[in-house]
Amino acid sequence: MSANSNQPVTPFQPPLRLLMGPGPSDVHPRVLSAMARPTIGHLDPAFVGMMDEVKNLLQYAFRTTNDLTLAISGPGSAGMEACFVNLVEPGDTVVVCINGVFGNRMKENVERCGATAVVVEEPWGKPVDLARAEAALTAHPGAKALAFVHAETSTGVESDAAGLCALATRHGALSIVDTVTSLGGIPVQVDRWGADAVYSGSQKCLSCTPGLSPATFSPRAVEVVKTRKTKVQSWFLDLSLLIAYWGGGAKRAYHHTAPVNALYGLHESLVMLREEGLEAAWGRHAHMHRALKAGLEAMGLNLLVDEAARLPQLNAVLVPEGIDEAAVRAQLLARYGLEIGAGLGTLAGKVWRIGLMGQSATPRHVIACLGALESVLTGMGAPIPPGAGTAAASSVLF
Amino acid sequence: MSANSNQPVTPFQPPLRLLMGPGPSDVHPRVLSAMARPTIGHLDPAFVGMMDEVKNLLQYAFRTTNDLTLAISGPGSAGMEACFVNLVEPGDTVVVCINGVFGNRMKENVERCGATAVVVEEPWGKPVDLARAEAALTAHPGAKALAFVHAETSTGVESDAAGLCALATRHGALSIVDTVTSLGGIPVQVDRWGADAVYSGSQKCLSCTPGLSPATFSPRAVEVVKTRKTKVQSWFLDLSLLIAYWGGGAKRAYHHTAPVNALYGLHESLVMLREEGLEAAWGRHAHMHRALKAGLEAMGLNLLVDEAARLPQLNAVLVPEGIDEAAVRAQLLARYGLEIGAGLGTLAGKVWRIGLMGQSATPRHVIACLGALESVLTGMGAPIPPGAGTAAASSVLF
Repeated sequence: MSANSNQPVTPFQPPLRLLMGPGPSDVHPRVLSAMARPTIGHLDPAFVGMMDEVKNLLQYAFRTTNDLTLAISGPGSAGMEACFVNLVEPGDTVVVCINGVFGNRMKENVERCGATAVVVEEPWGKPVDLARAEAALTAHPGAKALAFVHAETSTGVESDAAGLCALATRHGALSIVDTVTSLGGIPVQVDRWGADAVYSGSQKCLSCTPGLSPATFSPRAVEVVKTRKTKVQSWFLDLSLLIAYWGGGAKRAYHHTAPVNALYGLHESLVMLREEGLEAAWGRHAHMHRALKAGLEAMGLNLLVDEAARLPQLNAVLVPEGIDEAAVRAQLLARYGLEIGAGLGTLAGKVWRIGLMGQSATPRHVIACLGALESVLTGMGAPIPPGAGTAAASSVLF
Repeated sequence: MSANSNQPVTPFQPPLRLLMGPGPSDVHPRVLSAMARPTIGHLDPAFVGMMDEVKNLLQYAFRTTNDLTLAISGPGSAGMEACFVNLVEPGDTVVVCINGVFGNRMKENVERCGATAVVVEEPWGKPVDLARAEAALTAHPGAKALAFVHAETSTGVESDAAGLCALATRHGALSIVDTVTSLGGIPVQVDRWGADAVYSGSQKCLSCTPGLSPATFSPRAVEVVKTRKTKVQSWFLDLSLLIAYWGGGAKRAYHHTAPVNALYGLHESLVMLREEGLEAAWGRHAHMHRALKAGLEAMGLNLLVDEAARLPQLNAVLVPEGIDEAAVRAQLLARYGLEIGAGLGTLAGKVWRIGLMGQSATPRHVIACLGALESVLTGMGAPIPPGAGTAAASSVLF
C-alpha cells in the first residue's frame, strides 16, 4: 500500500456555482445529462453516426463547408497545438500577433516547431493593428502563416479577423485563428474570412464542459499538411491520421479512443445552439453585455477595453482604487457562489474578468452578478449607489 | 447558412450495449452520474482539492509514491506522447520492444522526437523476450530509455514489466511503460518495478469514460525533464509546466483548462477501485477470466496466447475455420447489443478480442457473452454443444 492509504475516500460533490469567469461557463442540465448517457464503443456504428452529426453541427457553428471539421480530443491548447504542428515545419517563419496571454502561447508553439516567430505586439487591452501586421508580412515575404487571437480571453478584446485573414491571403500566408472565446458568442465566419486553420474550446460560448477543441481546416491548409516535407512532430495530433479517423465515414480508421461521453455533451450543446440559431445566440450575448455594462457603469465601474474592440462575452472591469481585488472574488465565491475571473499577466490585480458566455449569458446571471458585486463592494466601503447597478441593467433587459 | 442546415437536429440517444471489446468497458452508473454533476471552475478551491484526491487515488492505483502523478488531459495516446516528448531529446537512442500495435506507436513517437528507435521485435501474441531486450541495451550503451507495453491490447499478452524495468535500471536507461490495459486489472507496481514513466487510460480496467490518461513519473524521470538541453516539443504536454499545475497545491499555476467533468468521473471510478481494493479487483479479473476461458474451451474455441503470458482482461480468441468473424461481431451487436473487438494488424480476421475489464469483468458479462456467442455461432452452423459454454463457466463462477 502506498503512503496515502489513510486518506478519506468519498465521492466528490461539487458546490453550486454561478460561473461568470473566463470559462468554463455554466453548463446546461441538458448537456450534463447527455454526458451521463451510457458509454458505447468508439467504433460502434451508432457512435460513428453521432460523430458525423458533430462534424455537421461544427460546420454550422464555424460557418464553413470545410470537410476537415472536427473536435480535437483535448482542451483548447491541444487544438492550438494541432494547428501549429501540422502547418508549420522547421525553418518556417510565422508572423504572430500578440495582445494577451494566448498570443504568447502561439509564439511558444511556433518556436517548439523549430520555426521562427516574427512578433507583432500590441499593448494588452488593444486589438491587433492591421497596418503593423501587414508590415511584418511585407518584411518577411514567404512567411508560412499569420497567427492571431480573434477574441483574447485574457483582456476581452476582439481583433479584426476578416481583415487579418485577408492580409494573410494577400501575402500568400496561411491564417491560424484562435476562436476559443468567440465561437458561438460573436460572429465567426470561417469561409467568409477565408481562414485556414481555426480552433476553439468547448467550455466558453458553447457552454459544454471543458476538454474538447472544435477545429476546422480549409482545403488549402489540408493541402499544406499533405505536402509536408517532414512528419508532424505529434503523433496524437497528426491531421493526416485524424483525417482518416474523422473523415472516413463507415470506413473510419482507428487512431485513438474518442472521448465518447465528452462528445455526447458537445453534440448536445451544438444541438442547443442550432435550436436557438447562431444569430440569436450572438444577439443574446450582445444584449446581456449591454445590460451588464449599464449596470457596472451605474455602479461607477469602468471597462478596460475601448467600445470598438470590446467583446460582449468577456468583460475586463477595472478594479477601483483601494479595493483588494482578490478579496472581492473570494467573497463573491464564498457568499454568493459566484465565480468571476482575475486578471492575468500585466493585468493581474488591475482587472476582474466577467464572462457572459453561453448559458451564463442570461438575465439571471447579469442581475445576480451586479447584485452580488454591489453587496460585496459596499461591504468593503466602496461608495456604490444602492440598487443602481441592477436598476440600470433592468432597464436594458426589459 | 452552411450547406448542411437541413440536417436533422435531435439529441443523441445511444443504444444500450454490453461493452466487452478492447475498451471502452462498461461504465458504472455511479461514474456516469458523477460526470453529470454541475461544472465548477478549474481554479475553484473545491476543484483543486478534488485534483489532489485524484492524485492520491492514482498513487494508490499505480502503487507509487511518485509526487508527479496526474491525469493527462487527453486519451492514452496523449499519455504515451507525454512520456516520450518529455524524456527523449533529438539524437537520443531508445530501445523499443514491439509485440503489437502499441509498441509500433511507441516507435513512431521516438522517431517524431528526432531520436533513433532500436527495435526489439517479437511475433504478435508473444511477450517481450528479456534476453533480446538486454542484448539491445548492451549493443547500445547510453540508450536513453527502454520502452515497452506491459499489457498489449492488440494481442492480449502480458510482458514481464518487473524484469524489463530492472534491465533498464541496470543499463542506466529510463523505463517507459504502457499500462493502458493493465492498470486496475492486473498488478501494476510502479515503485516495486522501479519504473520511470508510466501511462495508462481511463476507459479500460478503471471503467471510466475514455479521454484521460493517468500517468506517473519517478523522481529520476523528473530530474531528466528538468535538465533537458532542448525545450519539450509539445507545449500542451510539457511536464515542466504541468508540474506547476498539478503539483502546486493552492498555488497551482494556470496551464490549461482541466476537463472538469471528465475528472469527476475519473475520481469516482478511482473511489470505487479504492472501495473494492486493488487486490480484490485483480482477483475478480482473474476469476472472470477463468470462467470465460472454461466456457470458450467447452465450446471448442481456443485462445491465441500461451497461458504464461495471457492477460485475464483481454482475451484474443482464435476464429474457427470457415467462420466469417466480422459477421459474428455484427450479429452479436445487432441481436444482443454485445460489443467484442476485432483483430488488429497481422491478427485482423484471425481473432476476436473479448475484454473483461473493470465493470465488464462480472459474472453477468461472462454468461451473457458465452450465451450470445453460442447463439450466433450455432446459427452459422458451427458445431457447438448446446449449453456447454455457460455450464462450464458457471462451474467456475460458483
